[in-house]
Amino acid sequence: MTKPAPADGIYLFSPAGAIPAGDPRVERGLANLRRRGYAPRLDRAALARSMRFAGTDRMRIAAFERAAAAAEPIAMITRGGYGLSRILADLPFDRLAASGKRWVGYSDFTAFQLAMLARAGAPTWSGPALLADFGGEFETLDQNTVDTFDDAMAGRLEVLGFRASGPAGIDERGVLWGGNLALVCAMLGTPWLPRVERGILFLEDVHEQPYRIERMLIQLLHAGVLDAQRVILLGEFNGYRSTDVDGGFDMASVLRWLRGHTRTPVVAGLPFGHGRTRLCLPHGVEIGFATEGRTGWIVLPHSPH
Amino acid sequence: MTKPAPADGIYLFSPAGAIPAGDPRVERGLANLRRRGYAPRLDRAALARSMRFAGTDRMRIAAFERAAAAAEPIAMITRGGYGLSRILADLPFDRLAASGKRWVGYSDFTAFQLAMLARAGAPTWSGPALLADFGGEFETLDQNTVDTFDDAMAGRLEVLGFRASGPAGIDERGVLWGGNLALVCAMLGTPWLPRVERGILFLEDVHEQPYRIERMLIQLLHAGVLDAQRVILLGEFNGYRSTDVDGGFDMASVLRWLRGHTRTPVVAGLPFGHGRTRLCLPHGVEIGFATEGRTGWIVLPHSPH
Repeated sequence: MTKPAPADGIYLFSPAGAIPAGDPRVERGLANLRRRGYAPRLDRAALARSMRFAGTDRMRIAAFERAAAAAEPIAMITRGGYGLSRILADLPFDRLAASGKRWVGYSDFTAFQLAMLARAGAPTWSGPALLADFGGEFETLDQNTVDTFDDAMAGRLEVLGFRASGPAGIDERGVLWGGNLALVCAMLGTPWLPRVERGILFLEDVHEQPYRIERMLIQLLHAGVLDAQRVILLGEFNGYRSTDVDGGFDMASVLRWLRGHTRTPVVAGLPFGHGRTRLCLPHGVEIGFATEGRTGWIVLPHSPH
Repeated sequence: MTKPAPADGIYLFSPAGAIPAGDPRVERGLANLRRRGYAPRLDRAALARSMRFAGTDRMRIAAFERAAAAAEPIAMITRGGYGLSRILADLPFDRLAASGKRWVGYSDFTAFQLAMLARAGAPTWSGPALLADFGGEFETLDQNTVDTFDDAMAGRLEVLGFRASGPAGIDERGVLWGGNLALVCAMLGTPWLPRVERGILFLEDVHEQPYRIERMLIQLLHAGVLDAQRVILLGEFNGYRSTDVDGGFDMASVLRWLRGHTRTPVVAGLPFGHGRTRLCLPHGVEIGFATEGRTGWIVLPHSPH
C-alpha cells in the first residue's frame, strides 16, 4: 500500500523528452514546490533517458500507470519535448481518467490532454511543468503562473482576466480545449482528437514560422474545427524569426487572414504558451468567456474537479 | 483565341512562393528548357509578389485559370514555397482537371495534387520545377531529373529503377500518391485528402527534424492511412541537423519505429524530394512496384494521360 499523501502532494513524471543529465532545475523545482507548500515526489523513471526520450515507450507508459496509482492527487509533467504521439495508442485512458488525478502540463502533453478528452471525456489541466515553471530561482518564478496554479489546484480559481485583442462584447459559454497548435493539428484524422462543438478553443506554439502557424490554422479551418467553435483564443506564438523570404508576412498577416475566413471570433492575448506566463486552465471543462473593452475574462465553474 | 502551342509547350506559373527579384534562375531556366526542345512561356503574374506569396490569393487562383486555358499541354510551377493551402477552397478542380493539362510540380504543390485527386479524381505529375531543376547552368542540370521529365512528358516513361532499402520480393500494384509529408499531413481531416486504399504512398520532406518526421508519420499511422496502403515509399529527407537533444535519435530510429508499427512494407531510397534528383512520377495513377534484390522498380502504365 502506498502511504496516503497530503492533499497537496504532486507526483512528477516524464512522459516525453529526457531531462538533461544533472539539470539543476530538477532539485530547484522540487525545493521551490516544497517552499510553496507542496509535497512533490519524483517518479523513479523521471530522469531516465532513451535517445531523446525520458525512457523507452514502455517505460513512459509505465510512468503514467504509476502516476495514476500514486497517492498524490496531482500528476505534473517534468517537461514537454516530444514523445506522447508514440504511446497514445497504448495508454489506458479509462483507467487514467478513473484515477481522478489532476493531470497538469502543456506543450507535447497537449496530445495526452486531447486524447483523455476524446477517449474518456476526462478533464485535465493545461498548466505549468516542473522545469520550465518551478525550476528557476525561487524569487524569479513567474508570480502569475505559480499563483494561478495554487488557486487552480486548491479549487478556488474563479475568474482569470487578461489584456485581450479582438472583438469586444463577447459573452459565451463552452468547453475549453486545445493547447499546442502543432499537437492539435497532429491529432486531426486520428481517434485522439475530441469532437468539441460550440467550444472555446485555445492555441499557442513556439519555434514555428508564421507561415507554418497559418498552414496549421488553415488545416483546422478546412477540417471544420474553427467554424464549429464559439471563440478562438490565441495564446503566445513566439520563438520564431521573420526572414527576408516573409516579405513582411507576419503574425498580424496570419491573424488578418484567419479573421477574414472564419466566422468564429478570434481573441488574442491569452497568457498561455511557451513564454514566461502560463495560466492554469481546465481542459475539457465548460467555462464562460467574455470580453469587456480590452479585457478578456475566463470564468471557471465552481469546482471543476 | 490563343495560338495553338507546340506539343512541347510548357506554361510556367507561380502558385505559391514569390520568386526573389532578379533571380537569374528564371531566364536561365527558360533558356535551358528551350535548349532541351521545349517552348516555355511565363505566366504574366509568375514574377508577382505580395508579401511572401507570388501575388495575392486571388492572383494565384487566376494563374491556375490561365494555365488551364493556355494552349500549352504542360503546366509547370516555377517554384514551391507556401501558398496552396490558402487557395484550395477556391480552386475550380473540375475545370482544372477537364483542361487535360499535365500539371507538374512538387513540395507545396503536393496540396494541389492531393486535392485534384480527392475532388476530381485527376492525375498530376510529381516532378521538377523551373527554378530548382532547370535554373542552373545547362551542363550542371541533374541528368536523371531532366531525362525522366522528358520521357514522362513524351509518354515513353515505362520503368524507373532505383537503389532501394527495404524488404525484397515486393510485387504490388496500386495508385501512386503522396509527395511532401508535411503537406500530406496538412490535408488530414480536410476535404483535400484523397481516400486511397491499397495504394503506393510516397513521402519526402526537407528541413524537418527526425522527431517531426516521426510525429507526422505517426499521424498518418493513427489516421489509418499507412496500414491501408500496399507499399510506403520513402524519398529523400534532408536539410535537417541532429542535435544533442536527439541523443542519437535519427532517421534510422524513425524507420525502425515505423516498421515496427505498420504492417505495410516500407521501402526507402526513392530519388524524389528536395535533393538533387527528382524523378517525374504520375500522381494518382495506378502503377506497379516491385523490389528485386536491392533494386526498386516502378512500372508505369503505357500512357498515363
